Amino acid sequence: MNTFGRIFRIHIYGESHGKEIGVIIDGCPAGIPISTDDFTEDIQRRKGGSKGTTPRIEEDKPIIKSGVFNGKTTGFPILIAFENTNSRSEDYNDFLVSPRPSHADFTAKMKFAGYNDHRGGGHFSGRLTLGLIAAGVIAKKIINPVKINATVIEVGGSKNIDSAIDNALKNNDSIGGIVECRAEKVMVGFGEPFFDTFESLISHIVFAIPGIKGIEFGSGFSSAQMTGSEHNDIILEQSGKTKTNFSGGINGGITNGNKIYFKVAVKPTSSISKPQQTLNMETGKLGILEIKGRHDTCIALRVPVILEAVTAIVLADLMMLEQKITRII
Amino acid sequence: MNTFGRIFRIHIYGESHGKEIGVIIDGCPAGIPISTDDFTEDIQRRKGGSKGTTPRIEEDKPIIKSGVFNGKTTGFPILIAFENTNSRSEDYNDFLVSPRPSHADFTAKMKFAGYNDHRGGGHFSGRLTLGLIAAGVIAKKIINPVKINATVIEVGGSKNIDSAIDNALKNNDSIGGIVECRAEKVMVGFGEPFFDTFESLISHIVFAIPGIKGIEFGSGFSSAQMTGSEHNDIILEQSGKTKTNFSGGINGGITNGNKIYFKVAVKPTSSISKPQQTLNMETGKLGILEIKGRHDTCIALRVPVILEAVTAIVLADLMMLEQKITRII
Amino acid sequence: MNTFGRIFRIHIYGESHGKEIGVIIDGCPAGIPISTDDFTEDIQRRKGGSKGTTPRIEEDKPIIKSGVFNGKTTGFPILIAFENTNSRSEDYNDFLVSPRPSHADFTAKMKFAGYNDHRGGGHFSGRLTLGLIAAGVIAKKIINPVKINATVIEVGGSKNIDSAIDNALKNNDSIGGIVECRAEKVMVGFGEPFFDTFESLISHIVFAIPGIKGIEFGSGFSSAQMTGSEHNDIILEQSGKTKTNFSGGINGGITNGNKIYFKVAVKPTSSISKPQQTLNMETGKLGILEIKGRHDTCIALRVPVILEAVTAIVLADLMMLEQKITRII
Amino acid sequence: MNTFGRIFRIHIYGESHGKEIGVIIDGCPAGIPISTDDFTEDIQRRKGGSKGTTPRIEEDKPIIKSGVFNGKTTGFPILIAFENTNSRSEDYNDFLVSPRPSHADFTAKMKFAGYNDHRGGGHFSGRLTLGLIAAGVIAKKIINPVKINATVIEVGGSKNIDSAIDNALKNNDSIGGIVECRAEKVMVGFGEPFFDTFESLISHIVFAIPGIKGIEFGSGFSSAQMTGSEHNDIILEQSGKTKTNFSGGINGGITNGNKIYFKVAVKPTSSISKPQQTLNMETGKLGILEIKGRHDTCIALRVPVILEAVTAIVLADLMMLEQKITRII
Repeated sequence: MNTFGRIFRIHIYGESHGKEIGVIIDGCPAGIPISTDDFTEDIQRRKGGSKGTTPRIEEDKPIIKSGVFNGKTTGFPILIAFENTNSRSEDYNDFLVSPRPSHADFTAKMKFAGYNDHRGGGHFSGRLTLGLIAAGVIAKKIINPVKINATVIEVGGSKNIDSAIDNALKNNDSIGGIVECRAEKVMVGFGEPFFDTFESLISHIVFAIPGIKGIEFGSGFSSAQMTGSEHNDIILEQSGKTKTNFSGGINGGITNGNKIYFKVAVKPTSSISKPQQTLNMETGKLGILEIKGRHDTCIALRVPVILEAVTAIVLADLMMLEQKITRII
Repeated sequence: MNTFGRIFRIHIYGESHGKEIGVIIDGCPAGIPISTDDFTEDIQRRKGGSKGTTPRIEEDKPIIKSGVFNGKTTGFPILIAFENTNSRSEDYNDFLVSPRPSHADFTAKMKFAGYNDHRGGGHFSGRLTLGLIAAGVIAKKIINPVKINATVIEVGGSKNIDSAIDNALKNNDSIGGIVECRAEKVMVGFGEPFFDTFESLISHIVFAIPGIKGIEFGSGFSSAQMTGSEHNDIILEQSGKTKTNFSGGINGGITNGNKIYFKVAVKPTSSISKPQQTLNMETGKLGILEIKGRHDTCIALRVPVILEAVTAIVLADLMMLEQKITRII
Repeated sequence: MNTFGRIFRIHIYGESHGKEIGVIIDGCPAGIPISTDDFTEDIQRRKGGSKGTTPRIEEDKPIIKSGVFNGKTTGFPILIAFENTNSRSEDYNDFLVSPRPSHADFTAKMKFAGYNDHRGGGHFSGRLTLGLIAAGVIAKKIINPVKINATVIEVGGSKNIDSAIDNALKNNDSIGGIVECRAEKVMVGFGEPFFDTFESLISHIVFAIPGIKGIEFGSGFSSAQMTGSEHNDIILEQSGKTKTNFSGGINGGITNGNKIYFKVAVKPTSSISKPQQTLNMETGKLGILEIKGRHDTCIALRVPVILEAVTAIVLADLMMLEQKITRII
Repeated sequence: MNTFGRIFRIHIYGESHGKEIGVIIDGCPAGIPISTDDFTEDIQRRKGGSKGTTPRIEEDKPIIKSGVFNGKTTGFPILIAFENTNSRSEDYNDFLVSPRPSHADFTAKMKFAGYNDHRGGGHFSGRLTLGLIAAGVIAKKIINPVKINATVIEVGGSKNIDSAIDNALKNNDSIGGIVECRAEKVMVGFGEPFFDTFESLISHIVFAIPGIKGIEFGSGFSSAQMTGSEHNDIILEQSGKTKTNFSGGINGGITNGNKIYFKVAVKPTSSISKPQQTLNMETGKLGILEIKGRHDTCIALRVPVILEAVTAIVLADLMMLEQKITRII
């Protein structure tokens, strides 16, 4: 399903090399000032062009097609489109026969019986995350006073990001990374038991981002090695402030007023320049695949702004549900 | 929201020390043979009583209230209830004033303005997972030929589970653990882009299980340290079989025909016998909390059968959506 | 789907002659005082026993299984069950072979391949509306200051209800009727374009009530014969008060502050004592069916309290969405 | 909510005088041939221009932005847009102060605190139904062998449609009408108890069409005047074929294999050329409103093709749910 959210709802559409990709945001409060300039910074942060990210530079200009009138949201669906202008579709025809290892080429073809638009990864392209960014920009505007901030904390197992990227580039290879996201000033009470815990909603949307392999909240996997007396966060104040924060700001699936933080593991880009083996689906034999096209050395570098966006989207939805955001702003 | 699923839908209800807890399964195919005996094994696996799990032994007898006729599902909602018979509610009154650290006591009270049923953790109790087990037993019946199997692979950082538990018990403390879940014979094609990837749905429901802190699919967090040429799974056969399986059986959010596996981190039980500090909400001062009641030394030990259940629930839903399970069986 | 609503959500379960029928109400605000006595009046109004309604008298005693603690709602799912105690299942076996005309016997059997619980109409029984009543009682408590009132305005084409019923009883026949529902003091602004107009939501749930054949809002079908200059309701005051109210209190799918009213057509009970023809499904030949069992002469008589309930349910959901009902009361 | 459907899901967006209006169709099977020509006939049938409908002629050219590749659906969201090219927005400014009687001007302004795009009725414009038409064209392609057909059966209380329109035009007035929709070759078994009965889903979407005041299935309101022995449809054959069809092809909310038919009442267009009274919202006094702009004399004339579309949309969703339409065609 290409829809996420209960009140603040988003719908993603488009294929990488089709006419356009974009997002509809439904259920957004009326009265929020929006201009296309508001999107520039986050789109820029996500965009390729720097070392370690793909040289493909789309203009990535948001076009607001509906839901904004006189510079403010109307309360009706906001469609934000991004035209596709800079694509080399012929680069992708080989992958119909020789699917790229660990990519969606094979699964997409099988699930959709070959009717999927394979060019540029189609609907599976990282380009689709532009829609998340756009929705995130709007979400960030309404989740006051929350501040969200995400950073790459490690790539290829190294804290020295630059040299790790250089090394991978030199080898025509790619590397993975870890990104941490933090949200501050989140009030107590967001998260809806039983199934819509805060972690459930965040992880649901996080795993929609291509390339994510794991997520951990607070102390995460290291909590498995701890004792209760070490791990328990002592409550210090009536506001809920705790001495330590192994809980990552969440208890019983509900935010507890402390800083929220979680980490995600991003796999190394599947598309690498280095020749690799794959099956030729027609002959049934293994062959050598050389991927030309354009691709990131380390997609983890693009993930921080996307994590911020999806966290804002989840918070906007929960805060509207909890009536901490009014329907008219 | 206490509902999960699109076609095979489950609704959880009940509080730990109320009259009963249970689950409604809606959208289940008609014609599946069901008897209360079918639930015995999985309920037994989840149940407390052995070393490291709580001494509270409810009878945990499933009562089928609707949706089964002449021993077979009717296609209408199946309500399965578990009566609460063995509870010591008075054990919990202290926690209204002195919330247990890292427990839902504080967040539940704040979110629901104190109206929540705090006894035994109320709706936040691990007891609620009985409903997941019951739904999972039914789900397992319909997801042929899939086989799901989960095991504890580590507690308190040690592979020697018995001695780690003994040690924690001796210290009146608790410990965390890691549980791995594997699903075999899952066909290619389950998972619904953009938002309902296989990982999205699994992680959504997994984080509804109390005490889960992290999840990783396939190579998970270790993939962040790998290069693409190491991590890519070479496709060997037209069936989709790969040489390695760092992808954990999923590409682009869609199952690829290989074994699915994921690991979850379970935190140490928050309730420990060891005295610990917490806030007295009335005085605003720190005090010492001694938790009597009954609790698990290591809740990770109960998690395997729950992970199997939720995996079966997700698969049942996706397989019905993909029309691999018929509505009449 | 046995679920209705976005925020204030209800789940219906049970079969007429199974163990119990009931409803889960999820998303209800915390803090609402509830006792089983609160349900007595509306259950009584719905109950059979008087002239024109079925002699089957269940005790119809609501049992609150969850979601209420210390006499108030907790914010978690409220399960309200009604045990089935007074059923004569053997009365229904004939209908497996000889489906009652205009009843769900045939369609239920075909759709569910005969696995449905046919006894007493199973899930299709009017008895299931008890769950609507129970949810409606709770909904009515939270939709202040709205007042809802429904009445039978006509049966069998006659305003003289008593004599029309007598006549039908004498003929071993049944008759239809028309019920009007009115809601007063509904504020401006409820209804969610494009698809969840006020009329859309009301009609959706109204057509879940067995036996409803039509619905019209305001001037309804007679508006088709009017001109715009006759039909338009002149706005008189800034509150939205209009001179006439052909709109039935709704414009553009949104409540306009005037009295809401709508009428529904209820068909004559399908089960009649009078012998009638039907197909013998085994022989493929027509035969004569004599329905013994127990049934209403005029189900329209039971509909008013149900219409009030479903209107309250829709309003509760829309008012929570519009944040006119808080999550803690 | 601007979304309808569970499997075959549609999202409506746009305002009458914004950049574009349109629809996303999500969950559509892959492999369906689609070209823009496929939409021509139904768009033409809906379009204004003939006597009794508005002189505003947009080009109404569908632009497929996503979800179609090599002339076939991909299984991903299909966005179909219609640009707005021929609008006279200044015509609508007066209505901000002097809301048109029985129109959404007042309710939209109040609900959205004046942030709504009022031009041309904004999101409330009949123009939005173009999105329904587009989704309906696709739905019609997949619901084989069902045939749907709708016609105006009466306007202004008269079967002589032409002369009734002439009369209204002469008086600068508008008139209402009644439209009947029929679906043939619908198999037994569509409709999902308890809440998603066939009538529930049809009426839900029908009341999203601007101007609908009532709906009745089969014998509808006239059934209220009948006895059971008159109204019951005798089953004649094992296929479910009945002698009469007062049920309108539906029993217990499930299609019974006979012809489905229902009628809707369409109100007279609210916008009339004839001067009428309304409130001046600023002065709080009544004044005379003369609506210039462009509008239909009888919107009922445009409704048939829309009714066909929404019926096809509901059937597509139910048939996919019931697995009578495969996900790859």
